[in-house]
Amino acid sequence: MSRLAVTEKIIATKVAQGLKWADVAAAVGLSKEWVTAGCLGQMTFTAEQAAVLARLFGLTEAEARWLQVVPYKGSLPTAVPTDPLIYRFYELISVYGSTFKELIHEEFGDGIMSAIDFKMDLQREPDPKGDRVSITMSGKFLPYKTY
Amino acid sequence: MSRLAVTEKIIATKVAQGLKWADVAAAVGLSKEWVTAGCLGQMTFTAEQAAVLARLFGLTEAEARWLQVVPYKGSLPTAVPTDPLIYRFYELISVYGSTFKELIHEEFGDGIMSAIDFKMDLQREPDPKGDRVSITMSGKFLPYKTY
Amino acid sequence: MSRLAVTEKIIATKVAQGLKWADVAAAVGLSKEWVTAGCLGQMTFTAEQAAVLARLFGLTEAEARWLQVVPYKGSLPTAVPTDPLIYRFYELISVYGSTFKELIHEEFGDGIMSAIDFKMDLQREPDPKGDRVSITMSGKFLPYKTY
Amino acid sequence: MSRLAVTEKIIATKVAQGLKWADVAAAVGLSKEWVTAGCLGQMTFTAEQAAVLARLFGLTEAEARWLQVVPYKGSLPTAVPTDPLIYRFYELISVYGSTFKELIHEEFGDGIMSAIDFKMDLQREPDPKGDRVSITMSGKFLPYKTY
Amino acid sequence: MSRLAVTEKIIATKVAQGLKWADVAAAVGLSKEWVTAGCLGQMTFTAEQAAVLARLFGLTEAEARWLQVVPYKGSLPTAVPTDPLIYRFYELISVYGSTFKELIHEEFGDGIMSAIDFKMDLQREPDPKGDRVSITMSGKFLPYKTY
Amino acid sequence: MSRLAVTEKIIATKVAQGLKWADVAAAVGLSKEWVTAGCLGQMTFTAEQAAVLARLFGLTEAEARWLQVVPYKGSLPTAVPTDPLIYRFYELISVYGSTFKELIHEEFGDGIMSAIDFKMDLQREPDPKGDRVSITMSGKFLPYKTY
Amino acid sequence: MSRLAVTEKIIATKVAQGLKWADVAAAVGLSKEWVTAGCLGQMTFTAEQAAVLARLFGLTEAEARWLQVVPYKGSLPTAVPTDPLIYRFYELISVYGSTFKELIHEEFGDGIMSAIDFKMDLQREPDPKGDRVSITMSGKFLPYKTY
Amino acid sequence: MSRLAVTEKIIATKVAQGLKWADVAAAVGLSKEWVTAGCLGQMTFTAEQAAVLARLFGLTEAEARWLQVVPYKGSLPTAVPTDPLIYRFYELISVYGSTFKELIHEEFGDGIMSAIDFKMDLQREPDPKGDRVSITMSGKFLPYKTY
Amino acid sequence: MSRLAVTEKIIATKVAQGLKWADVAAAVGLSKEWVTAGCLGQMTFTAEQAAVLARLFGLTEAEARWLQVVPYKGSLPTAVPTDPLIYRFYELISVYGSTFKELIHEEFGDGIMSAIDFKMDLQREPDPKGDRVSITMSGKFLPYKTY
Amino acid sequence: MSRLAVTEKIIATKVAQGLKWADVAAAVGLSKEWVTAGCLGQMTFTAEQAAVLARLFGLTEAEARWLQVVPYKGSLPTAVPTDPLIYRFYELISVYGSTFKELIHEEFGDGIMSAIDFKMDLQREPDPKGDRVSITMSGKFLPYKTY
Repeated sequence: MSRLAVTEKIIATKVAQGLKWADVAAAVGLSKEWVTAGCLGQMTFTAEQAAVLARLFGLTEAEARWLQVVPYKGSLPTAVPTDPLIYRFYELISVYGSTFKELIHEEFGDGIMSAIDFKMDLQREPDPKGDRVSITMSGKFLPYKTY
Repeated sequence: MSRLAVTEKIIATKVAQGLKWADVAAAVGLSKEWVTAGCLGQMTFTAEQAAVLARLFGLTEAEARWLQVVPYKGSLPTAVPTDPLIYRFYELISVYGSTFKELIHEEFGDGIMSAIDFKMDLQREPDPKGDRVSITMSGKFLPYKTY
Repeated sequence: MSRLAVTEKIIATKVAQGLKWADVAAAVGLSKEWVTAGCLGQMTFTAEQAAVLARLFGLTEAEARWLQVVPYKGSLPTAVPTDPLIYRFYELISVYGSTFKELIHEEFGDGIMSAIDFKMDLQREPDPKGDRVSITMSGKFLPYKTY
Repeated sequence: MSRLAVTEKIIATKVAQGLKWADVAAAVGLSKEWVTAGCLGQMTFTAEQAAVLARLFGLTEAEARWLQVVPYKGSLPTAVPTDPLIYRFYELISVYGSTFKELIHEEFGDGIMSAIDFKMDLQREPDPKGDRVSITMSGKFLPYKTY
Repeated sequence: MSRLAVTEKIIATKVAQGLKWADVAAAVGLSKEWVTAGCLGQMTFTAEQAAVLARLFGLTEAEARWLQVVPYKGSLPTAVPTDPLIYRFYELISVYGSTFKELIHEEFGDGIMSAIDFKMDLQREPDPKGDRVSITMSGKFLPYKTY
Repeated sequence: MSRLAVTEKIIATKVAQGLKWADVAAAVGLSKEWVTAGCLGQMTFTAEQAAVLARLFGLTEAEARWLQVVPYKGSLPTAVPTDPLIYRFYELISVYGSTFKELIHEEFGDGIMSAIDFKMDLQREPDPKGDRVSITMSGKFLPYKTY
Repeated sequence: MSRLAVTEKIIATKVAQGLKWADVAAAVGLSKEWVTAGCLGQMTFTAEQAAVLARLFGLTEAEARWLQVVPYKGSLPTAVPTDPLIYRFYELISVYGSTFKELIHEEFGDGIMSAIDFKMDLQREPDPKGDRVSITMSGKFLPYKTY
Repeated sequence: MSRLAVTEKIIATKVAQGLKWADVAAAVGLSKEWVTAGCLGQMTFTAEQAAVLARLFGLTEAEARWLQVVPYKGSLPTAVPTDPLIYRFYELISVYGSTFKELIHEEFGDGIMSAIDFKMDLQREPDPKGDRVSITMSGKFLPYKTY
Repeated sequence: MSRLAVTEKIIATKVAQGLKWADVAAAVGLSKEWVTAGCLGQMTFTAEQAAVLARLFGLTEAEARWLQVVPYKGSLPTAVPTDPLIYRFYELISVYGSTFKELIHEEFGDGIMSAIDFKMDLQREPDPKGDRVSITMSGKFLPYKTY
Repeated sequence: MSRLAVTEKIIATKVAQGLKWADVAAAVGLSKEWVTAGCLGQMTFTAEQAAVLARLFGLTEAEARWLQVVPYKGSLPTAVPTDPLIYRFYELISVYGSTFKELIHEEFGDGIMSAIDFKMDLQREPDPKGDRVSITMSGKFLPYKTY
């Protein structure tokens, strides 16, 4: 899959040049969460956004076109992730998944929180006992249709 | 595992009596997120908390003791969840997991967001285009130790 | 899970009494597709709908309440279904999945067809070379949000 | 498998030249659903159809021959697909699979809907609340033979 | 699933009474292959056939009705069978599967051998070097539809 | 594994030159079933047979030697095959596996049908309702040894 | 499966009465390896052997009949065994499997060692550095048939 | 992993030159079982042994050093092996694994047969009804330590 | 498996009576690590040890005999554990497993650390920044035998 | 992933030059356990540490930068490791995992032993009956937060 090759070039260039995702996002003019996901091969860029990235990462025209094609999504190599940072999120679903389900249904009824009409914000939360990672997710509630 | 039997009794009683998790949490005096997780067999209650739950759900003394034993955690029947609401969270990790990793490391260096020293708040976010589910997670950052 | 027990009672009663799903759906006043899915433990009924089903299948009051609780969805025992009828649908995704993806993105851009805001109609299509099964699915297109 | 190499060349050329599957299908003279599936390595072309594709995508004679060989079918990298668009179809089978089974058997008796003598049509369905994806599938019913 | 209970009762009765599948099939008036598959919960009987089986195996009326309901098919507990006799068939597919594919396509073009419009005959083939099991399978060829 | 490379060369040459397995088998002087399986990397050829194949497919001397080495057998990429033609055989085992077991044991007692001392014949069976694929398998019965 | 129930009764009786497999085998008049495998539900007994076992383990007539029915074989709960003693054998196959293959083919050509026409002897081998387990396996070589 | 490359070179050279494992073992001065396992990447050679192999297989100095590094063991591509010869050993564990366990514990108590302090001898056993493969395994019994 | 029933009775009694593993171990006269493992169904007790446990947990004579039978070991329900405490140990193997391998081989050569001739000590390690869990494992090194 | 390429270069250089991990660790000035894990691609080095490694292993500047990027952790190719040395650790978790859980909870209450704020020491423990591997692990106890 050629999008994968573009993703690998972006990552290798980022390491070689010491770029930061926050700076890449600022150049694109969108949140660091969405832009990083896009650079990692999970989102689709417009021609203008792709042009910015092409400049930053030295992409060819063909590579820039791949950024505008909807990718086959899924960024992890195994169904249960082995990386400790990512695993902790998987563990949260394992431990809290039934709680998410109960509380969302108690508040909204049958349906889901959209993972498509979705946004996310990740921040450092200073704390004297050790700083914390704070993540706020917001997804539209989609009720099951009756017919 | 006997804790499972207590969990099933709590859920069956809740359905039969039309209780709400928010009310159960208020009776216990803690957040609805943590109390629901505990009632679903994922957290450990103190003797006082267990007594409140025993009263609400008509538990025997032995059943109340099980609430005070640390459970074998994990609330889902399969590694990849089939329930659509819970799957959407799994999908978020699949799509955004590498983004979580990049951004947390960019901000904090090598380490993880704790899933133990962790709290969560789930709210309805009114929106004219359809209300949204808003989830704020806060976990302590734990840096990898060098030795 | 008690909803499972209610589902099994409904199925056993249906076999014993020779009921048809189409008649059950007519009594409930909704499509046969949605009502059958609900009776098989995948959808949530209102109190009125549950009362109709309780009468048809001889359910107790407690059993009728379970019909009004959002179930843990997923109706198949294995990730790859063994039943030939159901497998053929799985095969269609295996063979045509990438085609669905290409054509929906070509028409709509990045996003998905909702499986929640979704309806379905299943009909017999008479054909001199052998009647055909005709299934029409309609799901709202949900575009990926940029932020 | 060499067919895979031809598929990858077709996709790369399509991105580079900005072709549309609908136009490719029109050139071949068949539906966009079947032609796209074929270009993605799931169907077998005739010599004439392969010649059209060879012209469009700049294929060599050997590559065009591969298009006329029956491929090893199956277009997805994992048993449970990770891509959100394709997963939604998998979820529909998980949630509605037993419903498909009940309703088809109620109407036709024991047998299956063919995935071979099968056709499909995918259209945009305009809707003021948001356009919808409409998919109509038609497969011959095949009754189980008694002997 | 109640059909499973009927299957287990049939098997237990067969062991207790020392019945033979060949005799059961003769009573039903169909091949031993199809009748055995049906008694093992894989096929659907007519009311008349079910009545014969009810008499042979001492089934109740409700149990006989279950024999007339299309079952969820698949008779093996694991994806790769552990029983040596059944495994040998799985091994044949592993070793000869690509050969089946090449030769059927060479003879018939793209399509499949039906597993639905299918019949089978299993016989002892006397041989001085040790008798052989002879299995003849016959399935209708179904060509892939172009549209 | 180098045998794999020889297999791929044989297949690519076959496509490029439009050879038929039946003709290859005739040149080797054995059945089309066994010769195809061998060319697909599942059987071991003698030096004479390998020389014939080397001539037909333009193999080097080293490649011809690989044809005489016993290969690591198993020709399918996944435990449950995704290709529809091959899957139908897997489905037959899933549905009829317990029937094979019952009928072979009823006729022969405890033991297996050999997949080694085994032969197979695949033919077109003309039929006015659509031609059929007919496969006859013959494997020596091997009784379990008591000791 | 009722044979399982008979197996469990045999094991429970053996623990309760402190029987030894060697004594059971002596009573049956065959090797301890084959008799133990049979008592654990993997082999088929004759009526005479079953009568001996029925007396030893207090089996009913129906239970004794089950011992004469060919069982669904496979005695382990998972594909990769967790028990350390049994795992070591699995590890030997993982480490030495390709060696078995090379040496048997070097000596015999293409074929297998039969697991059906097979016998085994397990003995204590005294050794001053710690006694050893000695296992001798003997299986008929079965050459692949050419046809 | 570079050891893999050395293993592949050894195998390719062996095929090209028509060497036998028995001769390789004789040159090294150890059993054919251990030397073959080592050449297949499962054991660690001394400098002297590696020098012999380097001469036989034309290895470079760097390649010879890799033979002296402890490899990551495990010589099979899947958890359940597909090759018929190797599968038969897996089947023996599936069928006889619980028998191994019972008999070794009956003789030795709790513990295991070592797969490390282990040796093996594989011989042809002439038999008028067909020669047999005879394998003798000897592993030290290791009792579980109590503390 | 009856040992499982004894394990469950021991655990249920422990919860009901508020016993501590340390006290159970003291009564048995061995380490808390080994005795707990045994009570959880992983180790084999002597008649004397079983008598102590029978008194503590109110076991019948038959239940006490089961404690003296070598169990089928493995105490976790899934290959990758879901419980966060146990998962951390699995993660350590995932992250540090290749390090264990390199360092043990560097120090000892080819071989393993025995998991049978093994002991373990688990202690609280006071620390002003938060107490620590300290685990010391000691296993005999077993060198691979050359033959 | 480029870090993988750097890891492979480090390992290949180490074999070619006969370096020892203990010496590498001494050059870096940290423990052999942590430094080895880092060289195997599991930890993140500082610029100074990376410079030392670059000198030792002849890394380019770009390769040295990769050592300073947080890697995707997990050093084993399969969920259940096949290598005997590493498997023994997995077996310890399988056998002792529930014991770890019981004893840590008995001492500390609900929570985990951190695998992040963690250190480890691996030593040879001389013993006349055969030297032993001694591993001391120390991880901070993290109590579950109540909120």
